[in-house]
Amino acid sequence: MAGFVDATKVAPVADGEWSAELDGQWAVMGRPNGGYLAAVLARAAIASIDAAHPHPLATNAHYLNPPSPGPATIVTETLRRGRSVSQVRTRLIQDGTPCVEGVFTLGRLAPDAEPVWSVEAPPVLPPPQECRLMIPRPSPTVTVEILEVIEQRLDPAVLGHLRGAPDGGGEIRGYVGFVDGTDFDPLGLLFAADALPPASLTVGASGWVPTLEYTVYVRALPAPGPLKVRQRARLIQQPGWMVEECDVWDSADRLVAQAIQLASVRFS
Amino acid sequence: MAGFVDATKVAPVADGEWSAELDGQWAVMGRPNGGYLAAVLARAAIASIDAAHPHPLATNAHYLNPPSPGPATIVTETLRRGRSVSQVRTRLIQDGTPCVEGVFTLGRLAPDAEPVWSVEAPPVLPPPQECRLMIPRPSPTVTVEILEVIEQRLDPAVLGHLRGAPDGGGEIRGYVGFVDGTDFDPLGLLFAADALPPASLTVGASGWVPTLEYTVYVRALPAPGPLKVRQRARLIQQPGWMVEECDVWDSADRLVAQAIQLASVRFS
Repeated sequence: MAGFVDATKVAPVADGEWSAELDGQWAVMGRPNGGYLAAVLARAAIASIDAAHPHPLATNAHYLNPPSPGPATIVTETLRRGRSVSQVRTRLIQDGTPCVEGVFTLGRLAPDAEPVWSVEAPPVLPPPQECRLMIPRPSPTVTVEILEVIEQRLDPAVLGHLRGAPDGGGEIRGYVGFVDGTDFDPLGLLFAADALPPASLTVGASGWVPTLEYTVYVRALPAPGPLKVRQRARLIQQPGWMVEECDVWDSADRLVAQAIQLASVRFS
Repeated sequence: MAGFVDATKVAPVADGEWSAELDGQWAVMGRPNGGYLAAVLARAAIASIDAAHPHPLATNAHYLNPPSPGPATIVTETLRRGRSVSQVRTRLIQDGTPCVEGVFTLGRLAPDAEPVWSVEAPPVLPPPQECRLMIPRPSPTVTVEILEVIEQRLDPAVLGHLRGAPDGGGEIRGYVGFVDGTDFDPLGLLFAADALPPASLTVGASGWVPTLEYTVYVRALPAPGPLKVRQRARLIQQPGWMVEECDVWDSADRLVAQAIQLASVRFS
């Protein structure tokens, strides 16, 4: 079982080309998780500019074809190297098939950055021990491999759908930590902001919600400890496209990541 | 004065290469507006797949170097052609310099699409005639060229900053229409979601707010008539990065676009 840092590492192959080993543990139903893939691309993007700007301020990923666990190639292209930010394009390729296209604005976050202005407040959660620990094999046909490597404790108030009674709120919230005790870094946040079950479950949608596009802004360096994560459906429109946002606070209640995604939703 | 459709048109040059003429009217302080540039890229992306999927479901644009009005080249690359969506990468180049990198998920919106579930409600606005009409030369050193081609009427309740008394709310809202009476289409929405003054003005920031990255989801085909647009600062973090969201409703009060951007903000 590879920790998050090992599972996202990339090795240089040639100028602008990197190899990665996609880890089957950082997956859902056998497919590498979208936030995990974004983190692998981010690692290559940062390495491609010699870590001059080590943090992904803005991440966009478009999911083209789902890769399988195993070897993959990442190509990187520097779009612009600037003083305060650099911009890098990336592509994950497996067996000649483009799988994920990612574009990054990279910069440097200050350890002591404080909000100048904010409307955001962390979710009010029960203590972790009163939250429900999510398990990797909730039914014989479902495997959520990432739940072997992350500890996900969700607010029971929003889990009515697990008893067949969705609460209709469009929101899922809880705590996320790495099982091996690793603290989150900015790349870990790219994963954490796509690690909760889809909020559409709370409004009666069926489970499988493939992400088409995922955008994440990392806003601050997270303090050690588990994260508070809140995922909200904003609008689900016929024929089944959802815009869902995800906000992430660190253990000091600082907003450290803001994400949004377009996903495909089915109602059974 | 070119209308929006003429100002965004592209012509084929070679396989995967297009020419455009960036119009100086669709600009702020002499620089083509970011939403306008996203619409030009979208037009090339859609043309590149023969309009099989004519609507930009998800748009990401990273701004690399600001182009000037005048000729530009757009290169397009099909990432994936699918049944329900296609994905296309684009780049706007001027005089050999890459200016904007854009990635699109294209699909087809149904004219009668209805929300399945939503938390969004349109802003409560005074009638248009009680809103403040924004003008293209508000001071001798400021030119907002787009205000010659769009009619922008803002809610006076959030314009305290124009009198030196920012209200602190982090929100700007109002009506946006094309002066020549053109109705909005999905590409027009890419422009409309980046056409208001920055919401950071209401919390005391100075004016110039360059966008680093801009993400837009077009959710429905807009009904004819002016749009209701609400722009909100969500978090402004040291040393001056803002995540700002913009939501757009049509004249029938349907949410037609949801946007978010990372911009650089200064406090003078």
